[in-house]
Amino acid sequence: MPIRTGRYTLQFPNAPVITGSAGVAGKKEEEGPLASEFDYIFEDILMGEKSWEKAESAIQREAVIRALDKAGRAPSEIDFAMAGDLLNQCIGSSYGLREFNIPFVGLYGACSTMALAMALSAIMVESGTAGKALAATSSHFCSAERQYRFPLEYAGQRTPTSQWTVTGAGAAVIEPTGQGVQISAAILGRIVDLGIKDANNMGAAMAPAAASTIKDFLEDTNTNPNDYQMILTGDLGIVGSSLLIELLQRDGIDILGCHSDCGCMIFHPESQPDTVAGGSGCGCSGSVVCSHILKRIQNKELNNVLFVGTGALLSTTAVQQGETIPCIAHGVLLRQGN
Amino acid sequence: MPIRTGRYTLQFPNAPVITGSAGVAGKKEEEGPLASEFDYIFEDILMGEKSWEKAESAIQREAVIRALDKAGRAPSEIDFAMAGDLLNQCIGSSYGLREFNIPFVGLYGACSTMALAMALSAIMVESGTAGKALAATSSHFCSAERQYRFPLEYAGQRTPTSQWTVTGAGAAVIEPTGQGVQISAAILGRIVDLGIKDANNMGAAMAPAAASTIKDFLEDTNTNPNDYQMILTGDLGIVGSSLLIELLQRDGIDILGCHSDCGCMIFHPESQPDTVAGGSGCGCSGSVVCSHILKRIQNKELNNVLFVGTGALLSTTAVQQGETIPCIAHGVLLRQGN
Repeated sequence: MPIRTGRYTLQFPNAPVITGSAGVAGKKEEEGPLASEFDYIFEDILMGEKSWEKAESAIQREAVIRALDKAGRAPSEIDFAMAGDLLNQCIGSSYGLREFNIPFVGLYGACSTMALAMALSAIMVESGTAGKALAATSSHFCSAERQYRFPLEYAGQRTPTSQWTVTGAGAAVIEPTGQGVQISAAILGRIVDLGIKDANNMGAAMAPAAASTIKDFLEDTNTNPNDYQMILTGDLGIVGSSLLIELLQRDGIDILGCHSDCGCMIFHPESQPDTVAGGSGCGCSGSVVCSHILKRIQNKELNNVLFVGTGALLSTTAVQQGETIPCIAHGVLLRQGN
Repeated sequence: MPIRTGRYTLQFPNAPVITGSAGVAGKKEEEGPLASEFDYIFEDILMGEKSWEKAESAIQREAVIRALDKAGRAPSEIDFAMAGDLLNQCIGSSYGLREFNIPFVGLYGACSTMALAMALSAIMVESGTAGKALAATSSHFCSAERQYRFPLEYAGQRTPTSQWTVTGAGAAVIEPTGQGVQISAAILGRIVDLGIKDANNMGAAMAPAAASTIKDFLEDTNTNPNDYQMILTGDLGIVGSSLLIELLQRDGIDILGCHSDCGCMIFHPESQPDTVAGGSGCGCSGSVVCSHILKRIQNKELNNVLFVGTGALLSTTAVQQGETIPCIAHGVLLRQGN
């Protein structure tokens, strides 16, 4: 049973296990530092499909198939699939998962979706509601650019705070017992909106939400950053990461020694300068956590990783109407299992 | 604790209680048969806001405030809010709920969102994960038309199978005990796609998903339609409702005597001919269930209502790319409480 600890945190005494996971990515990500970590690299940006949107569904499906395979599970054994993505009406997920015939919970958490899906899956498993749950998400540079920014053909200049949407997907199978990384706690975040309006500076918009969730989690569990080998944010990028560190420092919380960010890890800032402030998109933390991070915990190189996915809950319409950007951050605590 | 019954159904022995709910709607809905049932009618289609999207957030916020008020709860007492809507990136919900400071789970279930949010909220409460949960959704005719179809100014002709997006919202507070309607079971649906491509015939696209979920629920619980005073679908409308009845008849299941549909209930087909095949949108079942239906159960006029929300998981981009329409239906069983 999930046990509420403090105001916002849920602890899982039985610590549900990630019995299989996969992170897949594209060619640009293959040129980054984590190339050898991904379970599969798509050399073709269209993944053999006729549109970028169909390609995104294909990469999410691929991640799910590989995660199921590693867990040794058939789709028919999964009780719930929890998934979402950045595309309008989350079609990356609905079209990506439609063939599996698994009861489907569509989520919208923007780039926090992997953390949200893992948290809800762990709640379902820990509470006995599900015997096996699946968490999945994806993003695709080309489908995101077309939808959120400019036609690719326009070759728009990128601002110094902009981030590069990762072409990638992550999926994880979560069960009550088994071999694998354990999820021992989770926290679902509140919407934080400090008035940022610049849709090319998501890092700045999301940093306060990440700070809020991390602070809540530390307070609820009466722990401090030293208790975690890594506090890993989703995709704050270079700009948002330094803001997060500064925001928490003001509250007397120093995460400098243990903070990492998937958006800062996935690209080389020097040799991939067009990625500017780092990676972003649901597939950023999705692919990095479900491959690199879970592998390192599994190999006993890492332990006690507080993964906090961050999402900006804007739309192009809201931005065009002069709205500020509401953000959210959801967290799961990952630790070595059996 | 939720108890899995059969393959897909969850039964709730403690039957979480809807301690407060509200359905609000617009002027068009006031001209329909349920006018006196809604908790509030917005006479102004813009709800005093500057855009239809902001207006939609305003109506969802209004439904939430009224549901909280009826439950006698402050936002700070709610552990999780589960909400979603039809707008790109679900901004009706994220902007509508951002001021409440409640941990937020963004959902995407298209027009099935009210049922999905109620089901997940009941799971959270029944499992002890949440002490109090909030389910909410909304839709707005003008924001939906602009996003999915044509500019309103274009005054496009409507096809004989098209439905009218309801301007409305629903919200419900769900707790372990208290006075109100109980949720005694839930079922999360699978994605069903039988190849319908006509985005103006959502009823036909969604009917097979509704049939699948209803059939699963009856099989899992070893019950038949006579055991329910009402099997209530979300927004199949006139076309989808007759298809649902036909599809189930082929499997030897006769729901003709107990079937109702929120989309058929909310408008007068004769005096509101522009609504054509009936109401649709997240706010359709959201507003009808959270006002009319829950009131009738509360007043002991109704009991054992299997509410099955239906959603079409398409996007304009997917339709333009020639894709078929994947659909889903989620259900909750509503019964008289104390």
